[in-house]
Amino acid sequence: MIYITRRERFNAAHRLFREDFSDEKNLKVFGKCSNTNWHGHNYELFVTLKGEINPETGFLVNLKTLSKLIRETVITKLDHKNINLEVDFMKGKLASTENLAVGIWNELHDKIKALDADLHCIKVSESENNSAEYYG
Amino acid sequence: MIYITRRERFNAAHRLFREDFSDEKNLKVFGKCSNTNWHGHNYELFVTLKGEINPETGFLVNLKTLSKLIRETVITKLDHKNINLEVDFMKGKLASTENLAVGIWNELHDKIKALDADLHCIKVSESENNSAEYYG
Amino acid sequence: MIYITRRERFNAAHRLFREDFSDEKNLKVFGKCSNTNWHGHNYELFVTLKGEINPETGFLVNLKTLSKLIRETVITKLDHKNINLEVDFMKGKLASTENLAVGIWNELHDKIKALDADLHCIKVSESENNSAEYYG
Amino acid sequence: MIYITRRERFNAAHRLFREDFSDEKNLKVFGKCSNTNWHGHNYELFVTLKGEINPETGFLVNLKTLSKLIRETVITKLDHKNINLEVDFMKGKLASTENLAVGIWNELHDKIKALDADLHCIKVSESENNSAEYYG
Amino acid sequence: MIYITRRERFNAAHRLFREDFSDEKNLKVFGKCSNTNWHGHNYELFVTLKGEINPETGFLVNLKTLSKLIRETVITKLDHKNINLEVDFMKGKLASTENLAVGIWNELHDKIKALDADLHCIKVSESENNSAEYYG
Amino acid sequence: MIYITRRERFNAAHRLFREDFSDEKNLKVFGKCSNTNWHGHNYELFVTLKGEINPETGFLVNLKTLSKLIRETVITKLDHKNINLEVDFMKGKLASTENLAVGIWNELHDKIKALDADLHCIKVSESENNSAEYYG
Repeated sequence: MIYITRRERFNAAHRLFREDFSDEKNLKVFGKCSNTNWHGHNYELFVTLKGEINPETGFLVNLKTLSKLIRETVITKLDHKNINLEVDFMKGKLASTENLAVGIWNELHDKIKALDADLHCIKVSESENNSAEYYG
Repeated sequence: MIYITRRERFNAAHRLFREDFSDEKNLKVFGKCSNTNWHGHNYELFVTLKGEINPETGFLVNLKTLSKLIRETVITKLDHKNINLEVDFMKGKLASTENLAVGIWNELHDKIKALDADLHCIKVSESENNSAEYYG
Repeated sequence: MIYITRRERFNAAHRLFREDFSDEKNLKVFGKCSNTNWHGHNYELFVTLKGEINPETGFLVNLKTLSKLIRETVITKLDHKNINLEVDFMKGKLASTENLAVGIWNELHDKIKALDADLHCIKVSESENNSAEYYG
Repeated sequence: MIYITRRERFNAAHRLFREDFSDEKNLKVFGKCSNTNWHGHNYELFVTLKGEINPETGFLVNLKTLSKLIRETVITKLDHKNINLEVDFMKGKLASTENLAVGIWNELHDKIKALDADLHCIKVSESENNSAEYYG
Repeated sequence: MIYITRRERFNAAHRLFREDFSDEKNLKVFGKCSNTNWHGHNYELFVTLKGEINPETGFLVNLKTLSKLIRETVITKLDHKNINLEVDFMKGKLASTENLAVGIWNELHDKIKALDADLHCIKVSESENNSAEYYG
Repeated sequence: MIYITRRERFNAAHRLFREDFSDEKNLKVFGKCSNTNWHGHNYELFVTLKGEINPETGFLVNLKTLSKLIRETVITKLDHKNINLEVDFMKGKLASTENLAVGIWNELHDKIKALDADLHCIKVSESENNSAEYYG
């Protein structure tokens, strides 16, 4: 069993808030992350796969193939977008790093299965200090 | 003559566009950075001062004092904000990294003079690949 | 199950030595890390929690709350201190990165339980080349 | 149980290709990584050990000892070398990051056992975006 | 006057040696960098331009345009190549970081002039410890 | 004219204080950096040289030679030491990052001249947020 990790990046705007909360309650619960005019991040996404090394190529999965899949499946939806308003798989969800990790897992899981590998971990890093990991 | 640099960080949303351009022209000139629903970055700000070492302290300027000044003067205006809509010193300006560097210079210049040092450089890093520097 | 990680930093002095060893034996066992006048590091601390995402907030734990807890519980005891002489939870222990990780785990474990999350891992990084992890 | 990680680095040339493939097929399968005149990387190697803290030293294993062992066992074979042509434990294998991780594991496993610790993970990072991990 | 910097990356093989030196002399002068079977690096290239901010765009030069120019002009020649054997502008030159910086400057200088900006600095980083800068 | 930079690292303890100040005044002027039991840092030292490329080698100065010179001249004096108590060229000086940069400049200047190059800049980085540069 081998594990490989590919890093991709996306820059996006978001806001942490609930529509059923008042601005005051959103500020109390989510702090400055609830700013009504949005803020944003340079997100880093680490996608880890596990499986057997293919003896013909020495690869679990060609990282070029994996990079293309991640870009086409999730980066084009997230990069230079507003996570709350424009990302289909985040509609109706709080735009937290935790929920982003779960949402990206769901988008990628079956497509990685089709590459003869298993998705092992989605790690989303929001800043040099904060990150979330999801293992399914 | 000695130079000291303090790094501070801020997370903000922005959009590159001109009101007098159509959406199509904004897209042509600014690409996906013109996304109408904003996007955002983890910006890094590097403030470099120059001057003589104070023989009483061994410092050009106490970096704690400098950090407090940068936070109170510019970071509180920028962090978790929308640069186009909410930052007074960027009003009416294109929210480019270049203009951010010039704007932050103008906000800090006189206040650093009051610390008996000269502002030497403002460097703003928008991503691991892109940055701008302004020397006045 | 989701995992979140918060990074905090502290700068401290320490020395690796045993009182019951001679200076020569300390030098033999611990090398230059046993320097009698101390040396120091910029330590990085990564605290990883696991648990269920709270559907009301989208968070496992608000990272601002977690950061405040880590700072009040361990960073104030460690930052700009001498680990051998001034840190209560390291008294009588060898000031190794391994023991630091275990000591910080013990300080934080119950307080994180009170946040409705489980402490999963304490990682202490002493330099860009050396780190230790403890999972309880 | 404690885990410690030591980072070491090596700079090497390699090429991804199969002798039984034509140049065209190598290009199709391995892309520009099959360049016949080689290319290269600054590899980072992370060696993670697990075991019990030695109460006499506060260490799992002295990281100086571990560093020396890694350097003598694998870094001297890999650094400033051609992985395909010059590295004995990679002879006859595709020079992928996955196979490098497995190869380094095999070289180090028994020698780390002799230090009274268990090898837990070999992570090889080929670039800031690509890495592989092997747990035995 | 504003300065902007774009980072690009390339992975390449090289060897430091002179054809008119014996292998022994090459080893004495260039050390393990003269390894006859090549070695390689993940190079980082930092291209810094200076000039006036264009009031219509807020840019000195659109960094997307600059990135495309750098990739088409030098990265395609360098990435996944052997610097000694395959890079036209390095033919007949010692493949040192210093000469790479000068060579890249010469390739880019006039093309950047055509973007209404001045090339200010080429920085080539060979490893986390070693880099060279050229200002023309 | 070409510029080359070599990074070296050292881990040291220090304290910012004046013997002619009371503990209270030291605390007021230097904050927690005046902690009487010391604290410490992982310092990064960047040594930049300028001069002409030697046509015989393609180097300004062989970076191996430069690294050896920096290690023998200053790193052995600083690494795993107490800057206030044990470093001859810092005796009687405030152990600030600014004074360290000047002190290291003075130690290295003439020895680099002997390598047929000019010392251009000493940069000392005390943390990811704070650094000082000296150009003589």
